[in-house]
Amino acid sequence: MEHLEQQMAELKTQLSAIEKKTAENKLSMIVFSGDMDKVLAAFVIATGAVAMGMDVVMFFTFWGTPILRDKGKKVGGKDTMGKMFGAMLPKGTGDVKLSKMNMGGMGTAMMKKLMKQKNVASLEQMLEMAEELGVRIFICEMSMDLMGFKREEMIDYQGISYCGVATFLEEAINSRIQLFI
Amino acid sequence: MEHLEQQMAELKTQLSAIEKKTAENKLSMIVFSGDMDKVLAAFVIATGAVAMGMDVVMFFTFWGTPILRDKGKKVGGKDTMGKMFGAMLPKGTGDVKLSKMNMGGMGTAMMKKLMKQKNVASLEQMLEMAEELGVRIFICEMSMDLMGFKREEMIDYQGISYCGVATFLEEAINSRIQLFI
Amino acid sequence: MEHLEQQMAELKTQLSAIEKKTAENKLSMIVFSGDMDKVLAAFVIATGAVAMGMDVVMFFTFWGTPILRDKGKKVGGKDTMGKMFGAMLPKGTGDVKLSKMNMGGMGTAMMKKLMKQKNVASLEQMLEMAEELGVRIFICEMSMDLMGFKREEMIDYQGISYCGVATFLEEAINSRIQLFI
Repeated sequence: MEHLEQQMAELKTQLSAIEKKTAENKLSMIVFSGDMDKVLAAFVIATGAVAMGMDVVMFFTFWGTPILRDKGKKVGGKDTMGKMFGAMLPKGTGDVKLSKMNMGGMGTAMMKKLMKQKNVASLEQMLEMAEELGVRIFICEMSMDLMGFKREEMIDYQGISYCGVATFLEEAINSRIQLFI
Repeated sequence: MEHLEQQMAELKTQLSAIEKKTAENKLSMIVFSGDMDKVLAAFVIATGAVAMGMDVVMFFTFWGTPILRDKGKKVGGKDTMGKMFGAMLPKGTGDVKLSKMNMGGMGTAMMKKLMKQKNVASLEQMLEMAEELGVRIFICEMSMDLMGFKREEMIDYQGISYCGVATFLEEAINSRIQLFI
Repeated sequence: MEHLEQQMAELKTQLSAIEKKTAENKLSMIVFSGDMDKVLAAFVIATGAVAMGMDVVMFFTFWGTPILRDKGKKVGGKDTMGKMFGAMLPKGTGDVKLSKMNMGGMGTAMMKKLMKQKNVASLEQMLEMAEELGVRIFICEMSMDLMGFKREEMIDYQGISYCGVATFLEEAINSRIQLFI
């Protein structure tokens, strides 16, 4: 009996060690790209995953950052570099372009028209859906700093947070799926 | 004794809960890109993984979709947009270009020549190998719909299926490796 | 008693089967891109992960390969194709460009200046940090062969190794996080 009890205790220890190594029903995504097509793919995956019961985290970094700016918000007090980045990068999801076949904006306009025709949600609608479904959005602080963006000019989104790569990795390590987009 | 039996039953429950959270020996890949270099990387990884005994699923979406069209097949009855997309996008694996250094097609031609010289399989050969090895190919229905592609113009491939992101995610969640290419 | 012992033995077998399916505290990354912004992201993630106690493997392939050449090293005996690739591709981390807004080099120069201003480590410094922290670097032999690169022209880096996709996949399959950048 004692022998068995000891074995049982060992099994329990092993089991909890293994449990710590298993991931949660979660998808973590790095949205590095700011291209319309890739961001669209990111949101289709995110909303699809959350609809399947997964917890979803999107970490927007580099070119992905400017598209989370709010078109309607203006902030002052930027230095020259910050003003340049602010002016050159897309402002909000309505301002993004296709990575290929943009053709001076014509390709992007065509794609938007097609999406409407085929009942594919626009990026603006996807973002709203993501918020309703509880997709968490992280924005990379280093990218904000490099591009001179301020929190006051970013979109209002429930569950938005500003963080570094370590915070993202903590989520990613416990996720069953990780993607770099 | 009863005490031990109860503990044993608890351990079994825990064990099967953990088992549900572990992934299969499977690799799931999203092939979003239609660039020659990236698609080549995707097939090198896919065939390499299957040679190691892994189950492999490739989900072709967006720019990845047109390269699975069959050059020899023609379909009618497309609207203007569908005809435009059909004409502008690469038709089949033989028609793809490098993402960089394409130089009006010269770079791509050089790379193809080099691959032959160095005994690296061409995309056409990779696709054949993938089929023989049992790599499963999924094609994104939303992309087909957006680009106006019809099933009749896609390649013949054993184990091809048309589906949405949910079907892919179900595979991905049970895979040890997931990649977005 | 015997009954219990048998159950215990079965549990142990199940447990070790599950253990084989769990991944290690490791991050495996394919660095396919040679763009400054993406390579920067790759190193930020790599050094961040290793700082969190993870084991990190970076597998440089295709456009990622030339940036691991040593600017100071020269090798002879290349054929015409090898010389062309050698001349056209970036030589070392100091030679890379932004994937967007490069504007003839001006955008890249601006970004480098900004990174210095904001105390973001340069790629050269990141590479040094990665070496100190023990990030392992794999270089794809197929890419070396295609681009005509020789081992003698690559950087000195402790823990560098030259291998194929199979070696990478063996690491990736036992990793909790995998990314294709």
